[in-house]
Amino acid sequence: MTKTILDLLDERKYSEIALALKDMNPADAAMMLEELPEERMPIVFRILPKELAAEAFAYMDSDSQEVLVRGFSDREMDEVIGQLFLDDAVDMIEEMPANVVKRILRHVDSDTRTMINQVLNYPKDSAGSIMTMEYVALKRMMTVRQAFDKIRATGVDKETVYTCYVTDSTGRLEGIVTVKDLIFAESRDVLVKDIMETNVKYVHTDTDQEEVAALLSRYDFLAVPVVDAENRLVGIVTVDDALDVILEEATEDIEKMAAISPTDKPYVKMNVLEIWKKRTPWLLVLMISATFTSMIISAYEGALAAAVILTSFIPMLMGTGGNSGSQSSVTIIRGLALGELKFRDIGRVIGKEAVVSCMIGLSLAIVNFAKLMLFDRAGFEVSLVVSFTLIAVVAVANIAGGILPMLAKKIGFDPAVMAGPFITTIVDASALMIYFAIASSIMGI
Amino acid sequence: MTKTILDLLDERKYSEIALALKDMNPADAAMMLEELPEERMPIVFRILPKELAAEAFAYMDSDSQEVLVRGFSDREMDEVIGQLFLDDAVDMIEEMPANVVKRILRHVDSDTRTMINQVLNYPKDSAGSIMTMEYVALKRMMTVRQAFDKIRATGVDKETVYTCYVTDSTGRLEGIVTVKDLIFAESRDVLVKDIMETNVKYVHTDTDQEEVAALLSRYDFLAVPVVDAENRLVGIVTVDDALDVILEEATEDIEKMAAISPTDKPYVKMNVLEIWKKRTPWLLVLMISATFTSMIISAYEGALAAAVILTSFIPMLMGTGGNSGSQSSVTIIRGLALGELKFRDIGRVIGKEAVVSCMIGLSLAIVNFAKLMLFDRAGFEVSLVVSFTLIAVVAVANIAGGILPMLAKKIGFDPAVMAGPFITTIVDASALMIYFAIASSIMGI
Repeated sequence: MTKTILDLLDERKYSEIALALKDMNPADAAMMLEELPEERMPIVFRILPKELAAEAFAYMDSDSQEVLVRGFSDREMDEVIGQLFLDDAVDMIEEMPANVVKRILRHVDSDTRTMINQVLNYPKDSAGSIMTMEYVALKRMMTVRQAFDKIRATGVDKETVYTCYVTDSTGRLEGIVTVKDLIFAESRDVLVKDIMETNVKYVHTDTDQEEVAALLSRYDFLAVPVVDAENRLVGIVTVDDALDVILEEATEDIEKMAAISPTDKPYVKMNVLEIWKKRTPWLLVLMISATFTSMIISAYEGALAAAVILTSFIPMLMGTGGNSGSQSSVTIIRGLALGELKFRDIGRVIGKEAVVSCMIGLSLAIVNFAKLMLFDRAGFEVSLVVSFTLIAVVAVANIAGGILPMLAKKIGFDPAVMAGPFITTIVDASALMIYFAIASSIMGI
Repeated sequence: MTKTILDLLDERKYSEIALALKDMNPADAAMMLEELPEERMPIVFRILPKELAAEAFAYMDSDSQEVLVRGFSDREMDEVIGQLFLDDAVDMIEEMPANVVKRILRHVDSDTRTMINQVLNYPKDSAGSIMTMEYVALKRMMTVRQAFDKIRATGVDKETVYTCYVTDSTGRLEGIVTVKDLIFAESRDVLVKDIMETNVKYVHTDTDQEEVAALLSRYDFLAVPVVDAENRLVGIVTVDDALDVILEEATEDIEKMAAISPTDKPYVKMNVLEIWKKRTPWLLVLMISATFTSMIISAYEGALAAAVILTSFIPMLMGTGGNSGSQSSVTIIRGLALGELKFRDIGRVIGKEAVVSCMIGLSLAIVNFAKLMLFDRAGFEVSLVVSFTLIAVVAVANIAGGILPMLAKKIGFDPAVMAGPFITTIVDASALMIYFAIASSIMGI
């Protein structure tokens, strides 16, 4: 696709390109544009039918949007920026340098400018920052017929018309009416107040976006209303934005657990310097914190020199501890993120992890003891030391992995950051101390 | 909430319970029911208004559904099961034992039974297995007025009426019309064929559910049509199911990367035996595979005995290698899962990882060398050996972490399973071999 377009561009067959692209889906057109070389993108963008171009623009990543905006004429600014939904416009503006933002804001009407500035002022990752203010508002005394007229009169630019919001004279949310309710109303003269749902779930402007997405997913809503401190309706968050949030937050959590500083940029878009910045700080911290393990080993240098065979099991013990710790911590971190676990469950978690870790530790120790005796011929004492250590290490790892994320959450730290990277360090140090303690008591070294 | 209800139950104040619960949201009612002791759940379920009870049932987890179904009278079966959307009914049946399924199927009409059996036959995690067959079908020659009549006549039980599907006489999908298109049509006499969108995105019954969810999210759709091998429309997947899929798949990927066998059950619902089963197999495999590291250390026993100080840096080197490897592998695995990376990008990935790992390795080595010389006073030779090893280990870890997930995907294995748990083992073994090789060449041991 991209290749054919580049060929046609070289041959200056612009009308053929126009013909090939005119029925494209906006999201596909955006992807196609992003794959073009930067200097060609504006040319192809201008060949697209105006409406498709404006819609495709909303789907593009901010780097490509910036390339286009920098080359836009004033008329193109009006055509493209004027067409954007408010939340897409805000998403774009958040990523642009200040001089480009200024130019963009000159090309929107003053109402929109006020709304954009308002949304930009909400904290990052809050409901306010991802909501749109473009929704259909109805009044309780309207008839179904009037409601449809209102939707037709004002709805064409709204991101969703399927859920309409009923507010009182002070802007407070009184209820919601879906288009389905309106279609299935017994007659077109029924009043909105008689079919509206008054038991409405809503969020506040400062509710965390992850909570908003969880709420949309739990109740299978297409949109959820956002209210301010005085319970006045100020916007809505639609399900497509909730989907984006869920994907984004899952990626962030995965990155944090792997000790990477999260960013919104996909790997393919990042240059090596950006990747370096994301990865190095955590590696440095963890490298320095491994000083503990070095110190423990140095302290037992004499014991190790006396029984060098003990050294060869250090990696296996530390590895098993690390794996056990990440098994339990990852389970708990995910449970906290999905809202399945709360801090008050900490007692149950500790109990469960204690029992499970005994079962796991025993299973591993039995297999390991047999392997050491029969296959490695490591001798009875060494086999015993290693196997006992396994049981203790698995227990420490599972319980630390269960408790630390919950404590992190309780004291307001991010469980994925706090718990993920640090558990290995804690487990490594404990594993060594346990190992040497058991070795010296059994082997007397 | 739950506590108050239990108190009221003890006092047999059933009408007060009914009053407290009657306006509850179905999803909230489901959560409340699940928190009740198993023997109390059916009583409270029966106190709920019939419609709310049926709706709440659809939101409950399969264990609780089973408890209720086992106690249902024939009339209750009709009332509750008859109200379920097809996809919810299928979700439930998939988790039930055969004798309960038989009883359920006796209580649905024969059309529904045929549809349920059809959906049950699609492969697990395919579009067919998560779709619903309840959608509004229109014909191209209908007017907007007739379309609204059709929606009113057939739509009340459909999971979504907002996207309607236009099919020809053989059932092939010709286009889609949204209710928004119908509302905004110039007159009620316009024909569906003149306002329908014919460039329709669809999926096949055997398309993987993750791809379906990605498509809904990319195009911001509320539903996507599912067609069979002859391109006949057989069902739709709605956005609320896509949300569930995305949450589920993210959890699965996270679990696999942490070497846990994934299940659909949340942690709080699993007993210790189930948790043991999820975790132990991988720990055993990884424990046994750590034999390599033991063998490498044993082979260099002499060298270690000569310079015991080298032992104390083994945990730090292996830890840094493991962390680097998981940083790159997790980034690549997530990129593959989100469709941002394809196998053809492997050259770019290797190039990027090679450059990044040099930068990271050098940064770590410089800090480490300074620390070893000034703080640990480990001596020039040892500091040099450890720092050089760091650079090499980071390079191996990053490149292995970059390549292995892509190769796994290419040969049809799950990148998260293949790459996640095994990278540490590979990196551990390489780290030791590199360490001893550099040590013997610099220190001549």
